[in-house]
This record gives sequence, structure tokens and C-alpha cells, in this order.
Amino acid sequence: AVFVTQASAAGTVSYNGLAITPQMGWDNWNAFGCNVDEELLLNTAQKMVDYGLRDLGYYYVILDDCWSNGRTANGTLQANATKFPNGMPYVADQLHSMGLGFGMYSSAGKYTCAGYAASLGMEKQDAQTFADWGVDYLKYDNCYNEGQEGTALVSYNRYKAMSDALNATGRPILYSMCQWGQDNPWDWAQTIANSWRMSGDVYDSFDRPDSRCPCTTYDCTLPGFHCSVMNILNKAAPILNKAQPGAWNDLDMLEVGNGAMTDDEYKTHFSMWAIAKSPLIMGTDVTAMTPQTLSIYSNPAIIAINQDPLGTPATRVWLSPAQPQNETYSTDSYTVGEASFWTGQLASGDYVAAFVNGASSPTTLSASMSDIFIDLLTTGSNAPVPQISQTWDVYDLWANRMSNATAQAIIMGNYTLPTNASSMSNSTSTMPVQTYNATAMSYADGLAANETALFGLKTAELMPGGTVQAQVPAHGVVVYRLRSQGGGAGMRKRDEL
Amino acid sequence: AVFVTQASAAGTVSYNGLAITPQMGWDNWNAFGCNVDEELLLNTAQKMVDYGLRDLGYYYVILDDCWSNGRTANGTLQANATKFPNGMPYVADQLHSMGLGFGMYSSAGKYTCAGYAASLGMEKQDAQTFADWGVDYLKYDNCYNEGQEGTALVSYNRYKAMSDALNATGRPILYSMCQWGQDNPWDWAQTIANSWRMSGDVYDSFDRPDSRCPCTTYDCTLPGFHCSVMNILNKAAPILNKAQPGAWNDLDMLEVGNGAMTDDEYKTHFSMWAIAKSPLIMGTDVTAMTPQTLSIYSNPAIIAINQDPLGTPATRVWLSPAQPQNETYSTDSYTVGEASFWTGQLASGDYVAAFVNGASSPTTLSASMSDIFIDLLTTGSNAPVPQISQTWDVYDLWANRMSNATAQAIIMGNYTLPTNASSMSNSTSTMPVQTYNATAMSYADGLAANETALFGLKTAELMPGGTVQAQVPAHGVVVYRLRSQGGGAGMRKRDEL
Amino acid sequence: AVFVTQASAAGTVSYNGLAITPQMGWDNWNAFGCNVDEELLLNTAQKMVDYGLRDLGYYYVILDDCWSNGRTANGTLQANATKFPNGMPYVADQLHSMGLGFGMYSSAGKYTCAGYAASLGMEKQDAQTFADWGVDYLKYDNCYNEGQEGTALVSYNRYKAMSDALNATGRPILYSMCQWGQDNPWDWAQTIANSWRMSGDVYDSFDRPDSRCPCTTYDCTLPGFHCSVMNILNKAAPILNKAQPGAWNDLDMLEVGNGAMTDDEYKTHFSMWAIAKSPLIMGTDVTAMTPQTLSIYSNPAIIAINQDPLGTPATRVWLSPAQPQNETYSTDSYTVGEASFWTGQLASGDYVAAFVNGASSPTTLSASMSDIFIDLLTTGSNAPVPQISQTWDVYDLWANRMSNATAQAIIMGNYTLPTNASSMSNSTSTMPVQTYNATAMSYADGLAANETALFGLKTAELMPGGTVQAQVPAHGVVVYRLRSQGGGAGMRKRDEL
Amino acid sequence: AVFVTQASAAGTVSYNGLAITPQMGWDNWNAFGCNVDEELLLNTAQKMVDYGLRDLGYYYVILDDCWSNGRTANGTLQANATKFPNGMPYVADQLHSMGLGFGMYSSAGKYTCAGYAASLGMEKQDAQTFADWGVDYLKYDNCYNEGQEGTALVSYNRYKAMSDALNATGRPILYSMCQWGQDNPWDWAQTIANSWRMSGDVYDSFDRPDSRCPCTTYDCTLPGFHCSVMNILNKAAPILNKAQPGAWNDLDMLEVGNGAMTDDEYKTHFSMWAIAKSPLIMGTDVTAMTPQTLSIYSNPAIIAINQDPLGTPATRVWLSPAQPQNETYSTDSYTVGEASFWTGQLASGDYVAAFVNGASSPTTLSASMSDIFIDLLTTGSNAPVPQISQTWDVYDLWANRMSNATAQAIIMGNYTLPTNASSMSNSTSTMPVQTYNATAMSYADGLAANETALFGLKTAELMPGGTVQAQVPAHGVVVYRLRSQGGGAGMRKRDEL
Repeated sequence: AVFVTQASAAGTVSYNGLAITPQMGWDNWNAFGCNVDEELLLNTAQKMVDYGLRDLGYYYVILDDCWSNGRTANGTLQANATKFPNGMPYVADQLHSMGLGFGMYSSAGKYTCAGYAASLGMEKQDAQTFADWGVDYLKYDNCYNEGQEGTALVSYNRYKAMSDALNATGRPILYSMCQWGQDNPWDWAQTIANSWRMSGDVYDSFDRPDSRCPCTTYDCTLPGFHCSVMNILNKAAPILNKAQPGAWNDLDMLEVGNGAMTDDEYKTHFSMWAIAKSPLIMGTDVTAMTPQTLSIYSNPAIIAINQDPLGTPATRVWLSPAQPQNETYSTDSYTVGEASFWTGQLASGDYVAAFVNGASSPTTLSASMSDIFIDLLTTGSNAPVPQISQTWDVYDLWANRMSNATAQAIIMGNYTLPTNASSMSNSTSTMPVQTYNATAMSYADGLAANETALFGLKTAELMPGGTVQAQVPAHGVVVYRLRSQGGGAGMRKRDEL
Repeated sequence: AVFVTQASAAGTVSYNGLAITPQMGWDNWNAFGCNVDEELLLNTAQKMVDYGLRDLGYYYVILDDCWSNGRTANGTLQANATKFPNGMPYVADQLHSMGLGFGMYSSAGKYTCAGYAASLGMEKQDAQTFADWGVDYLKYDNCYNEGQEGTALVSYNRYKAMSDALNATGRPILYSMCQWGQDNPWDWAQTIANSWRMSGDVYDSFDRPDSRCPCTTYDCTLPGFHCSVMNILNKAAPILNKAQPGAWNDLDMLEVGNGAMTDDEYKTHFSMWAIAKSPLIMGTDVTAMTPQTLSIYSNPAIIAINQDPLGTPATRVWLSPAQPQNETYSTDSYTVGEASFWTGQLASGDYVAAFVNGASSPTTLSASMSDIFIDLLTTGSNAPVPQISQTWDVYDLWANRMSNATAQAIIMGNYTLPTNASSMSNSTSTMPVQTYNATAMSYADGLAANETALFGLKTAELMPGGTVQAQVPAHGVVVYRLRSQGGGAGMRKRDEL
Repeated sequence: AVFVTQASAAGTVSYNGLAITPQMGWDNWNAFGCNVDEELLLNTAQKMVDYGLRDLGYYYVILDDCWSNGRTANGTLQANATKFPNGMPYVADQLHSMGLGFGMYSSAGKYTCAGYAASLGMEKQDAQTFADWGVDYLKYDNCYNEGQEGTALVSYNRYKAMSDALNATGRPILYSMCQWGQDNPWDWAQTIANSWRMSGDVYDSFDRPDSRCPCTTYDCTLPGFHCSVMNILNKAAPILNKAQPGAWNDLDMLEVGNGAMTDDEYKTHFSMWAIAKSPLIMGTDVTAMTPQTLSIYSNPAIIAINQDPLGTPATRVWLSPAQPQNETYSTDSYTVGEASFWTGQLASGDYVAAFVNGASSPTTLSASMSDIFIDLLTTGSNAPVPQISQTWDVYDLWANRMSNATAQAIIMGNYTLPTNASSMSNSTSTMPVQTYNATAMSYADGLAANETALFGLKTAELMPGGTVQAQVPAHGVVVYRLRSQGGGAGMRKRDEL
Repeated sequence: AVFVTQASAAGTVSYNGLAITPQMGWDNWNAFGCNVDEELLLNTAQKMVDYGLRDLGYYYVILDDCWSNGRTANGTLQANATKFPNGMPYVADQLHSMGLGFGMYSSAGKYTCAGYAASLGMEKQDAQTFADWGVDYLKYDNCYNEGQEGTALVSYNRYKAMSDALNATGRPILYSMCQWGQDNPWDWAQTIANSWRMSGDVYDSFDRPDSRCPCTTYDCTLPGFHCSVMNILNKAAPILNKAQPGAWNDLDMLEVGNGAMTDDEYKTHFSMWAIAKSPLIMGTDVTAMTPQTLSIYSNPAIIAINQDPLGTPATRVWLSPAQPQNETYSTDSYTVGEASFWTGQLASGDYVAAFVNGASSPTTLSASMSDIFIDLLTTGSNAPVPQISQTWDVYDLWANRMSNATAQAIIMGNYTLPTNASSMSNSTSTMPVQTYNATAMSYADGLAANETALFGLKTAELMPGGTVQAQVPAHGVVVYRLRSQGGGAGMRKRDEL
């Protein structure tokens, strides 16, 4: 096997060489649950190609739970023949032929969460089966774990068994731990997996508290499920920096498009997952997408933050608590309502800056240069921070969101997607089409080449000593990319893990 | 042995084939403590038959602690000969001949909680003894556990030892873990047991805080005892969904009839245990029941929720905190007073909806269709939720509670219980007798056959977009079954465990 | 060895047959720390005899840390020859000849807390050494434990090693775990030890918060030290019921007489330790006792609660939070100020009832019969509670506290202590001398014989439906014994451990 | 090897004989991060000598992460040849020739925090490599620990492996655990290490909350990083007493001089680390020090507290919470603002007393003799506390801070540092130069000899029953040394560990 960890020079770069940027793709669970079959996967895959989602980077088509028919006499997992009449290798071949990867699901337990045969104690045989089938990705769940939880070591060993088994097959298989943040995987999963879930399951709600997701902080003895977007985001804030190229915090699959949030809420959800460097796994019915849904998933300026080569998650700089008494900043119907400001450094010396408004009415939020560059100011180097005295172009990354008309045209098959990055973003139409073809030109290359589609719209300049301000809708987000007119970035000290 | 877990198709169905719905029965502890003997068990059993309780589903007669006289020279457990002059097999035979099951007690420790010989390290021998005696049920306690607690794995292994030993006997024995919720059994007990206690012991109080039950949430390092009904219910809310057919959260034995709560409080206790899918184990002196007590234990419309074939616990949709300042909603003498609303899906597409009033004065509570169908609305499927646009019949499940006169007649032996389900609920009397014979017709069949006794009284209709409202007494409950006039139910996504 | 646990009949009775009631004695640490030598122990022992303290039950003279001079070439622990010129066996002989027991100290670690050789890994050899020396008691500390903490099992195994070693010597040695409550010893220590500390070290303060004792509840990851009397009492409340004859919660050694608390505070400290069934280990300089100190340690009516044959700790029935806003009930200088009420059942059907006033000014506290008999009312038996309709004599257990003049006379050697129980309490003086000789007649026998000295002063009658009331000084206590004029007590259900 | 623990007499004295007082030195991380090379170390070392910092006690020059080029074919760690062209032994030799010690860095994980080869599983080989290189000190980090965390025992074993390996080399190597306080190292590290970090990494901020350092108390499941000075100080307060000669709480390296705090904030940071007996490891660019920075690091009166032979950390006597409503005591911009008072006993019978003002405006704080001598008053001895009735000279330890002019002269090389302690502090200039040469005379000897430089300036007398008062700047500190005019100190009881 060729999976050699590169740790001799300047930091580890992925234990198995995969997921150098957060993985992207689609998983059927959020929208379809157990209702899976070959047709669903292949139809979805075709639409991902047709709508340009593949070329935006959504590569893995992940089959979740309920595909199984148990094991054969010799213990080999087998697919349900009704759901997968042509077998799994056929699915893999079809996906591969479309330029997509095939994601598979199992659990580090006696059964999967839906009660099917799972892989605890069968890791080697099952990993080989997956490799034989042509699988490129494994989501590995945590149900029925036979008490093998409660301390880091027992969880580590349980998940390492599959990690070793996958590596031993010789096939590159992205390994996605779905262990719900139990026993602090952000402390130990980087050397055995490409991503780790850090909370219970998301559900299609912006901030409704649910009895089944009782924790509101990362140190949680019951991960639960039915966790809202804001619940997960707040849990993630203290641990986001634990990610690194090849090893990501997974905030769970996206609910964008599933119907129970507003368009602003979905934009917030998508934006914050992206800047947190979470895997971006679409979780809706791609074959029935609305134009609004497509235009959120297809925002290349936001995706470019997620896929930025530096691989540094944003940091929450401040969290302003809900203020029920404040006339001008109202809580929402769940008495929630925090506002927050986030920043993160990007590969080119750019910065991402995001405002989140948790309140039920629009509000104006602002951040000073001390907020934006707080990590440079407190880095300990006592060196001057040149960024403070530079002028920055402020790009609004949602300003050029694809129009409903364009999205609708794409969905209807009436729009020909460009086949290379530059032609797309330099459309001859008066209104440039904000999409991108990462197959033709990687995000790293596109950023280096200043591809317009990756930068939204310049809307302001931030002068030295100035302030960034945004009018943020209720439950909404404003995301800026800041580019220095002077160029150049300060040293970033490697964080302790 | 024939205990094969069925996990190849659509979810696990009980690790040993038992408790497909929550077990029902009687246990002597709450009312009698250590004062046990053959006479108590057999007299109680006879009354359970005579009063129709057996036919309502109360099947197991469970002998709790203090029956033992240690071990024989070869290590076999032996009964106290004074208390059980005819031996345990005799008790089993008698119970079996009455159509009842025999429940036994031991502890996963050096001693039982009362200091008698227990089974830690003796699992195989003791399980065989119980099987030889004709035991059908084992309550397995947690005292004197020799430090084998504190992480999930050590607790799992300790309880699995008895699980394996019971299975190895070849006799079907329902396995009830009494481990007080230590180390999160809801994460790991489904594959080794039929139920697990999730808190310290209940006591006969609705909501009085007791120093010995210090925790108010599920993540508790001291389970304690003397936990009130409301204390346990609040602890249970986040974990109720961990149950499934064959594996239930045990909220502890019922205190209904023991004298320290009001009739409304006992109704709340019984109703909420039932819709939470807790085992329903009567804990009072059956031979001295009041009519009120009998009519609570005998409400077939509530039991039918508990025994519903879908096996899905209700969910707490909202919890309204106590409002001391609110004139119209007063706290009680312990400064408690939350109101809550619960819903749960049933096998037929029906829903259960329950309001709990924790305040010390009556109040009117209401829930919108968004409250009732919140799980459908946020399921992630983006599919239309037909339930929202249907009209629902609202059945009040306590409206047809058996009258005191009837209950008194049953107790006095002046009422002949019907021998089949239909004749009972279609009594020729003007006031239908709301009891049920599940021996003659299972709850599943009775529900399918629309047996009147299982549906309470239709009191209202819920129109599309409408609101369910209830006047709820102090410390009381209102439980509704909602039946769609349109029929049909939405897909329910399998929860992560 | 003869240490057979009796667990076949009606509950365990001490794993090694010792400490059927909480141990009593003296330990040098609180007053002298490391300044130990033979002279201190023997002088103290002589005063314990002279002042009647031995005959009140203070039996063990416990040598704490700093006695050691490491190990001999063959690994045997040896005493510091300067401090103990005649060797440890001599000390034991002298104490035995005075009718006292000899307590020794070691630690389940690499070193004792003061850095001397300790017993982890040397349990067998050291236990044999202690037995050879004639030791009757071992206080076994927790310092330098080499990481063997953090889960119950690792702590249990570490302390069990010495338990087994002591048992193996064949000498009865009371085993006192000084493990500060780590890993919940109240869950597992009953089968290996006679008592377990449940908190960090007490210090001579009633309720001053100290940074080094950061926890205020039992579930504490840093036991700390410098824990105040009220801090420990509040931590103990939820776990007091875990005690049983032979196995006690140890609230730590008494600070009575050490100078930094008021007389009322010391009375509260002593009374609450007594009714909590903590070991009563004097922690002051006996050779320099004030009359006030002697008269607190010598109150036979309070000690009789501690040594009551039933062995049931009192329960905190209610805790009234500090009320800074309340003019009539003021907090103290540390913003503390809770009032609490405690009850406990006694062997004879009597009850102890205690009021604690944590406020900085006197207050009147009262309790209803529902407060006093709450455990009978909620026992689950549905049986009538005869106690509610009885009339009770109310004995104030501090009313007959020994006068300063008498105490001073005892200290000066001017008072001849009686040699049997009855003559003492039936002094011919007009003011009866409230002391007691438990050597002549055990507390159990004295209680059965209605020895006056054990009952304080009858000050009131509690009528059916009535209320007990007390004027309680700032930081003070009032302790009553309630005796039914009707006699007879209700069944007490055995608590789960 | 000669590392014998001395535990037979009066307390342990360092497991390996090192760090009898807290280690002092410099580490490159805070200022330079990964930008390390030979030149940086040797240039810094030279300045440490030139500026008198070596002679003040800053002995270890510690190379942090990023020096490595992986392992040779036989597994031996090797330095990056570009950064260290002459190899590590050369660096060691150079440092040794300057009278300095050489500190090295590795991690108890698969990789170092920056992703280089680390020592988990390679302890023996790596320890020998370090010894062969002439290393005197090892900082041993916690990244990529492969799940070997979560209980004390697994952490203890992991860190003990390197401790044993270092000891086995026969070379005295100070062992500094950088384990961030996980699993309570203050309970178990004293017998295997010389210091242990007790929190996540400090950053250059006085009290700004940072999402990545979410805990505010010592019992933290996510150590995080970017912890402010006040955050760490508050976490440290409950555990400071766990330190002892040879085994220290490490509050992390100093940020003094790095630019993001005010001069008062840096004085507070330095003072509190010193009196807490933290290692004092400079973390700034020594070659670019300002006079203000040099004069803080060079205050011998503060260092003398840190290096006091008694080795007793100060205790926080009280913490006055932030009072937003109080006009006269304002919170700061982060709504923080606690004031606190700290005391600690010193070897000579002196006391240190420190006031910290966390508010954003100056304030007057005061402490009574009961505050200062609280530990003597509550010691349990009931002995009179002579300190209470003595008169104390109050020395302000910052009053004689080196002037900017002098510091600038030292930096410019225009000031000849004295070569023995006495001449320095008895300068012939009118303004005595407050520096010290501990190479010439140890702090212990200097204190005994009443060297002026170690005592700041006498500014007041504290009369019996009097009060110490200080005007404390915003975010500032006042540190006093109290010397009794009567002399003599009370016994100090050894704390439980």
C-alpha cells in the first residue's frame, strides 16, 4: 500500500493522502433515509453531473444505511438484491464512469443504526469487500457499539481497526468517522481518519432546541440527534482548529433544500459549514432541487473558502449573547439570538470574515481590524502586524449568487455549462454566471489565477483602522473575503493540536 | 438455544425475541420491600387474574429482593424455606397455571441491595438455577458491584455476562437490567437486554426534590434513589428514542396506588410511563387496591399506547419552564411547575399527544399542528407533510375511565369480566365498560379491529391548521389519540441510536 | 482468618466484623500535623482515659503521617527511632493496657502525603508489619498514587489490595479509606472497608470558601483540602444513605476545639457529624482542652445518636437557600446562609430531628410532621403511618450539656468519673452530670435501659399534626430526639445502595 | 544512574533531584514558533548572558518544535541540517560553554504538534539520543497521542515511559510535561516529572475570552489554546498547592514583551507566575527586548519569591467577583474584572502578599491580618498565632524596578553587570541597581544574607491588627513581601497532595 504519512518536514499531510481539502459530495440519508436503491444513486449522480455540481467539487455519491442483505455463508457482506439488482460493483462502475466517487456506509458496532449487519470485529473482511466493490469512501457509524465507548482509548482502538483494514486493502478509501464526537475524536482522529463527526445528527432546523439533542456545548455525554444548525455551530467553535489538511471536523451533512428553513437560514448553514472546513455533503433530493437550493449549493465563492489550500478553519472571534431586553436586537421564538463574528486566514493572505445574526430581526453588525486580525495581534511575536495598516478590498461572497432564472435554466437543461473555469466566469452575458468548473481548474489554481467566480463582488474597501460593517438579515449571514491591496500575510504559528 | 437476533432485514427485533412491546406485570418492592413470601405472590397473582389485570397484559409476577437463604454447599442459590416452604419451582408452576410469568431478582454484585447472595461471578450457575426453577424474567440489580462501574465497557461486560448465561440456558427469560442508568446503558444495552433502568429508584412523590436523588438530568454520576415522577420523566426525555422493540428504557416500577400522590398525579405517572414505552410494572398492594387505583391500572386506552406495535416512544416537543412571576401559571410548593407537550407516532398512523401540567393550579395548554407534527416537518425529506392538511379525530384517552362503581364491583367479585375483547367493549350496558382482554385479542389486533375500549372517547376534531387544546388539572395530564380522517402516515426516518 | 461476611440473612453486617457503629477515637493530624512522637500519643491516651473520653467510646488512638523512617534492608517499614524510641509494639502495648486501640497510617501510593515510604505495591508486607506491631486500625491515604485513579475499578483494586492484605493477617484491623471521595467510593467500598472519606480534608472553618476546595457538590474531580464544615456537610447529604453498619461515610476528623470556630459552630460540626454517622475522631490537643471543648466531645446524648444500633444516617429533608434579600434571615459574611432540616430513624422507633442555621443571625425554624416522617409517608406501602397520629416527647440533646464547672473539674482531676453507666447519669447532685460510661454499658444497652444521660432534656411534646420549632443561633444547631408516647415504628424499606 | 528519590525523612525532594526551585530559562515558541535555527538559539543565549539574565537564573535555552528532519534509517532522530548545520551536540556545547543548559522538545505522540517525528513508542531510543546530544531539559508535548488520554492511568503510563527512559540514560535531564492538564496531572506527576502544564497554551492577552480556550476552571475536557493570563491564573488557583520542590505546576511560558499587553498587565503576568511557583520561561525575542521588558524579567525581588527555598506556592485568599453595577469598581471590556488577594509563606518566615486588580480602572484593595494569615488561623492547632501580634515591614517588590535608563544601558552594552551579588545591590550610585547575580550567590543564600536587591523597597509597616492596603492599577498587581520585626514563623502543616 502507498499510504505513507508525510510527517518529516512541515506538518502532517493526511494520514492516507486523501481529503487534502474537505470532501464534497452527496449522501442520501437526510432526504431519503432508508429508501435507497441503485436508481436513486444513479439518477442523483446524473443530475450532479448535469447541474454542474460534480464540476463544482461534489465528488462522492454516498450510499447510507439500509443497503444490506446481511452476510453470505462465508461472512461476506452482500447488497439487498432488490434494491441493487446489478450489485455494488456495477454502481461503482457507473459512478466512476460519470467521474464520481462511490461512498459506502457501515458501523463500528454489531449492527448499523437501522439494524443491518455491521463491521465491528469484521473490519478486515468488510474493508476488503468494499475495496473489491470499488468503493472510494466509507462513512463509519457508531450504533450498537457493545459498550466500546466512554474513554478515548477504547473509541480510538475501535475506529483504528477499520482505518488499518482500509489501508491494508491498497485502495485509496476516504475514511469518514461518524462517531458523534464521543470521547473527543478531535484529540486523536487525525492519524486514523479523514474526518470525524463532532456532534449528534443535524436536523432541518436553524435553532429549535430539541429534547433529543440536550447538549449545547462540545463536552457532551449524550450526542443525541435532532441538533439544530446553531446548536452544532456553537459546539464546533471551540474545536474547529483541531482540523488540518486531510483531517476535518465534520459538522454533518447539509440540510439545504429540505424545506424547513428559510433561504437565509440555509445560506447561513451552508456558509458556516464551508468556512468551518466541514465536509460539504449535500443532503437533499438533487433530482427535485429548487433553483434556490441549486444556487446555494453552487456558490463557488463560498466553496472556494471551504476548498482553500491553506486548510485553516475560521475562528469565532466574538459571540454576543442574546439580549431579550434589547429593543434593537431581538431574540427569536426559541429565546435564542446570539450574534457572532468569525474570521479565518486563507492561503493567499486573504481573510474570510463572517457575521451571523441569530436574532429574529435584521441587524447591523460590525467588526474592527482588531477583531479581524486578533490572531495576528496576539501571536506573541511582538512583530508589527502589517495587515493593520493595509487597505483591504471587501468582497461580498453572496452578492453574485446565481439568479433563479439561471438556476432554473440549468435544472431545465436549457443552459450549457462551460467546460473550463475561465470561460464560465467570463461569460459574455452582461450578468456574469457565477459558477465554476473545478474539474477543469482546481480551486487552488483558480484562486491563484484570480478567477472572478471565486471572489463574489467587491462592495467596499476597508481602510487602515477601519471597520467592516454588514446589514445581516434575521437568522442570516454575511460573508466577506478580504484581499489586501498591499498583499502579503503574517506568519501563522502552528496551533497545538 | 433459539435466541437469534434478526438483524438482516429492517432493524433489530429484540436480542432474545422477548419484550416486543414493553413488559407488564407486578413487582412487590414498592409496596412490600423485603416482606416477601409465597403467599404474597400467589395471593397477588390470583387477584391479578380476578381483577382482569392479567388479561390487560400484566403478565409477570416479579419477586424482588430478600427471597434468598444464600447458597447450598455446591454454590446453588436457595430460597428462604420459611418464606417459600414449597420452593421456587412450586411458585413458578402455580403462576404458570394461572397464565402468568414468574419474575426473579438478583444483582450484578457481591450481594443484592438488601445484602443477600448475588450473582457477580456466578452468572452461569445462577442463570441455570433460575431456568431450572421455571423463571421467565430476571430483574438484575447493581448493588455491591465491586467497582465494576464508571466506564461503559466495564458495565457492559458485567451485564453481558448474565445475558449470555441466560441465553445459554435455552429458556426464554426476559432480562431487565436494573443498573440505574450508570455509564449510559441506552448506548449499549439493546443487544444484551430487554430493558434498562435509566435513573435511580422512583418514590411515591410527584415532584418533591430529595437530597438522595441529586441529579436532575440524565448525565448523572450518582443515580441515587427517592427520585420523583417528574424528576425521572425529565431525565428520560433526552433518551426515550433509544428504545426499540425488544429493548426499552425502564423508568422504574409504578407507584400508582401507594397513597402519597393525588389521583391526578397517579394518572400523570401512569400515562407518561405508558407513552414513554416504559415497562408497566404495578408496584402496589393488589390485594388492597382501591377502585381508583384499579381504574388507573386498567385503562386499556392508555395501555394500548404503551403496547402499540410500532414501539416508538413519545417525544417531548416543548418544555415550558416554571414561571413564578406569572399570575396565571403558578409553580407548586417545590418551586417546580413546568408544562410540557409530548407527541409520538403510533403503528396505525395515529398519534399520541399529551399535555403535562406541573403547576399547582389548573391551566389551559395548547399545541399547534407544527408542534404535533414537528418530526415530520423537520425530517429532511422536503416532501409534503400530508398530516398537516388532514382533519384529525381527537380521542381523550381518560374520558372513559372505568367508574368507581364498576371498579368496586370488580374488586368485590360482583362483576364478570368478559372473556373476549369485543364483548367487553361492546357491553350491553348504556355506559360501556372500558376494559379489555388482551389474552383474547392482542392490542395489535384490537387496534386494527378498532376495538372501542382502546380509543377512549372522541371529544373533538382537529382541523387543518388547527390547535389542540386541553384544560389540564394541577399536576395532571391530558392524553389524546389523534386519528386522521384521511388516513395514512408519513415515512419515519430511523433515528440514530 | 475469621473475617466472614454475614450476608445470607438480613443484610451485610461489616465486611470484617468491625465498626458495627461508627468508629470513635482521636487522631493527631488536625492539631499536630507532622509533630508526632510516642509521648504525644501516650499523654493523649492518658487524658482520654482520665477525662472519661475512652469510656464515652473514643477508643482508637490514631497516629497519622510522619512516624516513619523508611524501610529496613528487607523492606520492612520502620518507625523513626527518635520519635518512637521504644518502637511501635511498645506504643501498642501501652495503649492496649489503657483499654485503647492503636491506629496506624499509610498511603495507597508511592509515598505518604508527607513524603514518607508508603504501601502501594507493598500491601502484604506492610499489613503484616502493622499486625505484628499490634495495630488495630489503619488510615490509608491517597497521595502519590501513580495515576491509579480516575475510574472506580482502578481505585477499587488499589484499595482492595490493602483490604485483602489486612484480612490475611488474621488480626482484626479496622480499615479506614482516606481516598477523598474520588471515583465514588460510596458505590463500592462497603465490601472492602469500614469507612471511606467522601471529601477533601476539613479545616477549622464553618463555611469560608477556600480556593483549594473548589467543589461544592459530591461529584468532584478535585477533592482538594481546606473544606469547611458546611461544604462537607452539603457534599455528604446526597450520599449519606450509602452507609450501613460496618461501612461508613467519613466526613473527616473533628476540628472541635481547635480555635477558629465559635462554640455554636463546633456544636453544629459535632452534631451533624454524629447524626450523619460519620466516624467521630477527635482532632484537637486533648491535653490542652478547654472545658467547652470537653463538654462538646462528651455529650452522650449526641454520641448515642451516632452509636445508635440501627446505623441509619439522618437525611436532609429540606435545604432553604440563602436569602440575601430577606431582612429576617440574613446571609453570613461569605454570602452563605442556608437553613436545613434533617431527620433520621433510630433503633428504638425514636427519631432524630435537627435544624441547622447557616445564617449570621439567630432564626426560628420549624418542621411539620410531614417533614419529620417524609420517608414513612412516601415509602410506597400505602399503609397508614401511625407516627403521624402519635404524640411525641421532644428531647433537646444539648440542653443538659455538661457545665463548664464540671468540665473544668474533670480536666483538673477534681471529679471522679463514675464506673458504671447508671451511677453517672443518676448523680446525687441536683444538677445531673451528663456523661456516660459506654465501657460499663454499651450505648445499645443504655438506650434500651433508658439511661437518662442519653436523652438530653425533654422540653416539649409534639402533638398529632403538630410542628417542631426551634430558635437556632447563628451558625448553630438544635438537635432533638423524638420518642413516641405510643411506641412502635414503621417498617423501613431497605434502600438501594 | 544516581537519581534516587529522597523520601525517607521529611517529604519528597524531586524525583530526579532537579528543579528544587522552579526552572527558569527561555523558549523560542511564543515569539518565533517554527522559525528556529542554531543562530536564533546562540544569539539569544549570548544576549541572556550579556543582559545578566543568565545570572538572574534563566538557565535553560529551550528549543521548541520544528527542529527535526525525521529519523535516520536506524530510527535515530536527526536535526534539520539547514537549521542546525553543526548538529545538536554543537549547540549543546556552545550553550554549556556559556553556562547555560540546553532544552529539547518532543511529544508523547505519533507526531509533534507541528507534525514532526515524535517519541511515543520510541522513548528509550529518543531519550538516549537527547542524552548523547548533551540535552539538559525535555519539554514533552501531547499532540497526536493516539487516544492515550482520558483516564489518569493511561496518561500517567504514557508520560512515565519517557520519565523512565530519561532516568535510564544516567544524564540529569529536567523533565517538563506539556500535557495541558488533561487527566489531572497534579494528582500523579510529582513522582515522574519536574513540572506539568495545567492548562492549554497561554496567548498574549490579559483576559480576552477566546473560543478556542472554552474552559474557565481546572476541570476541563478540552484544554484548548489561546488561554489568557487571567484564565490560566483562575484555573491554577485550586491546584497550586499540588506543587512541591522538584515538581511544579507550569502555567506556561511567559508572554512578557510580546506586545499585546500593557506594562501593568505584563507585570501582573510575571508576578503571579512567580508567586504561583510556575517555571519562569521567557517567551519573547531576547535580542529585541525593550527596556521595559528587560526590567520586568530582571526584577530580582519577584524572582526571589519564585526561587524561595520553601517552595510553597501562594494561595488565593479571596476572589471578589466583577461588579458591573458598582460605580467605583468597573469591569473591563470583556465584562471580567475580579479582584483577588493572594498570600504565601516563604522560607524565612516572611510572607508574600499580592493584590490583583482585574478591573479596567485603578482601585484600592486591602487585606486584614485575618486574610494574610488565614492558613495559620485555621490550621487546626489551636495554638496562638504569633504573627497576628507582630509588626511587619512591608516591602513593595516593584518599587525598585530597574529604570528604563539602566535597562537601556544594559541592552546597549553600556553597563557592566556586577560579578557578585553584593556589589550589585550595593551599587555606589545613589539609585541602587536592582539586579542580582544568582550565579555568584544563590537566592537562598542571598535571602539569608538580606541582599537588598531581593527585597524591593520598604514602604510601610503593618501593625498588629492592621491592614495592608494598595492602590492597584487597572489590570495591575501590587506585590508585597512582609517581614516580621519579631521574626519566627508558625508551623506549616503539610498539605495533603
